[in-house]
Amino acid sequence: MKARVFVTLKDGIHDPQGKAIEGALKALGIKDVASVRQGKIFDIELAVGERAAAEELLRGACEKLLANQIVENFELEVF
Amino acid sequence: MKARVFVTLKDGIHDPQGKAIEGALKALGIKDVASVRQGKIFDIELAVGERAAAEELLRGACEKLLANQIVENFELEVF
Repeated sequence: MKARVFVTLKDGIHDPQGKAIEGALKALGIKDVASVRQGKIFDIELAVGERAAAEELLRGACEKLLANQIVENFELEVF
Repeated sequence: MKARVFVTLKDGIHDPQGKAIEGALKALGIKDVASVRQGKIFDIELAVGERAAAEELLRGACEKLLANQIVENFELEVF
């Protein structure tokens, strides 16, 4: 089973990397960029047959390792 | 207009960070993980009203800065 996990900064958390990218895009002449925020994705293959089991496993992986829930949100997509 | 850009490593490109995460998940007792590959997302707000113009701008941003097309693929999603 395949899954994609999205980890993004919570609203209000400062994103200096995103700000730097926004500045770099403007410097390259791409002026119509109003804001950029960077996040992470994890494409994960699972040796699990059931969707519910896959979601439970992924939720555990996010809580234990993939996302810092103080400053980040996560979303799951199981295919 | 809002958009999300996905940047992922091409197939066959070694991903040591993904491998490290896979190992860490297994060490945490999450054994049913077969593979992990890490990628990036960019949540971008654009001062552009038309979908086609937004896609063209984002394609330029990916080609110039956001993706290294030798080793990475990019995908666009405009909302």
